[in-house]
Amino acid sequence: MTLLDGKKVSKEIRDNLKEEIKSKHLKIKLAIIWVGNNEASSIYVNNKIKKCENAGIATELYHLDDTVEEEEVLRLIKKLNNDESVTGILVQSPLPKTIDEKKCFDLIAENKDVDGFSSISMGNLCLGNPHNVACTPKGIIRLLEAYNIDLEGLNVCLINRSNIVGKPLFHLLIAKNATVVMCHSKTENLAKITKEADVIISAVGKPHFITEDMVKKGAIVVDVGISRVDGKVIGDVDFDNVSKKASFITPVPGGVGPMTIAMVLDNLVNLAKEKKNG
Amino acid sequence: MTLLDGKKVSKEIRDNLKEEIKSKHLKIKLAIIWVGNNEASSIYVNNKIKKCENAGIATELYHLDDTVEEEEVLRLIKKLNNDESVTGILVQSPLPKTIDEKKCFDLIAENKDVDGFSSISMGNLCLGNPHNVACTPKGIIRLLEAYNIDLEGLNVCLINRSNIVGKPLFHLLIAKNATVVMCHSKTENLAKITKEADVIISAVGKPHFITEDMVKKGAIVVDVGISRVDGKVIGDVDFDNVSKKASFITPVPGGVGPMTIAMVLDNLVNLAKEKKNG
Repeated sequence: MTLLDGKKVSKEIRDNLKEEIKSKHLKIKLAIIWVGNNEASSIYVNNKIKKCENAGIATELYHLDDTVEEEEVLRLIKKLNNDESVTGILVQSPLPKTIDEKKCFDLIAENKDVDGFSSISMGNLCLGNPHNVACTPKGIIRLLEAYNIDLEGLNVCLINRSNIVGKPLFHLLIAKNATVVMCHSKTENLAKITKEADVIISAVGKPHFITEDMVKKGAIVVDVGISRVDGKVIGDVDFDNVSKKASFITPVPGGVGPMTIAMVLDNLVNLAKEKKNG
Repeated sequence: MTLLDGKKVSKEIRDNLKEEIKSKHLKIKLAIIWVGNNEASSIYVNNKIKKCENAGIATELYHLDDTVEEEEVLRLIKKLNNDESVTGILVQSPLPKTIDEKKCFDLIAENKDVDGFSSISMGNLCLGNPHNVACTPKGIIRLLEAYNIDLEGLNVCLINRSNIVGKPLFHLLIAKNATVVMCHSKTENLAKITKEADVIISAVGKPHFITEDMVKKGAIVVDVGISRVDGKVIGDVDFDNVSKKASFITPVPGGVGPMTIAMVLDNLVNLAKEKKNG
């Protein structure tokens, strides 16, 4: 069994990006809009800021009260779209229910859409012209690539159909010539499907959702689940038992999570280079 | 075994649309851009024109020589975008290789995108906000609905990953709560997957590609394949033998094909109503 060490791989990626930013004299600034005080968001936002700053990327945090009007958030996005000094804009999800998330994502200029959550970025990815690709899906692909895992012809069971993980990841996997089955809460006989899969990617958010008996010997297991139990972060996969059968497996934490943040930086560097090259 | 009679269902849909156009006094005009002289395209274009005219929809055909410059096609699309009398614009695929199809599709105004092939229409569909939905996928869903087939929890094997059939259809099926596996030319052990599927949707273009031994008893079989053999149109499915095992099956011709054209009309009526309601 080989551990898919996202902590290590993401560190290498961030170090390379830092080097590239320095050598190419890229001036990069990320604007983050964070509404409310969701605890998980707080961790993500702080982590993104820290990793950006470490790599030589400036950040600007707009931390708004959760009573803020949608109109004000939209105004802020427009202002940042027009601000030449801003390379990328990131609206931290989830937003309060009073604010239309889709409207916010779609308003972000295509050349500043770090997260790739806008309809046009999603459409481009889906139709085979990826530009801004959502960070978690992109990070998963990069992690598998780091271990030279060739997805062509592999049967992938992807358990998630969200707009920010499952759907973009589906299209990345198809582009890699994998055969992909998308499973979700209405899927029947899930274990029958996982048991036949060469690759299982689970983003459910239920601790120990993927048990040993659901996994084929030699399978590649990617755990995108995040649950907090007694202050500890744990994934979807019963790691101790599943890791005995898997050929490759991500730990939680230290698997997909750090890859996501590295891809925020990667997307920012891409946007900065595009801007520089006009 | 029940025949999924696209000819009959599409006729009902077209009759209803004709009635709606009349009663609501909708003024609808479809502009079709057809480049070159592809024989299959000729049949499709003529059929669309005929069915539109029958329903009370005006058509305008721009039939351009295959030596036309891309720039000229783009200019025409812009002109039609700005023409208040035009409800919808359809660029017949395939275009000659000298013309960038994506560029043409993406230039069509969102409120005139009958085919739903633009990146923004695809992004909206993918993210769960369908507006203009590609006609063949939409027609397949409407055909299944006409026979009260509930897709929730069914395992669907979709054999196609094209931008105009497989990908939009995938998202429609997921939205219906089906569990969907997307298969393609790099899929291994396809028969193993089809044999376990409750629904098989094949758009490969190889005659008799789906044989009886690949189909589970009671499966629903949708044939989107079109091949021309000795002047006859035949599908992917070995109909004579597969129909003995299937619970529902589409014929070719008379299955998905006529549904596609009915959806062109349906999309046009939607665009006309949106325009009318401002």
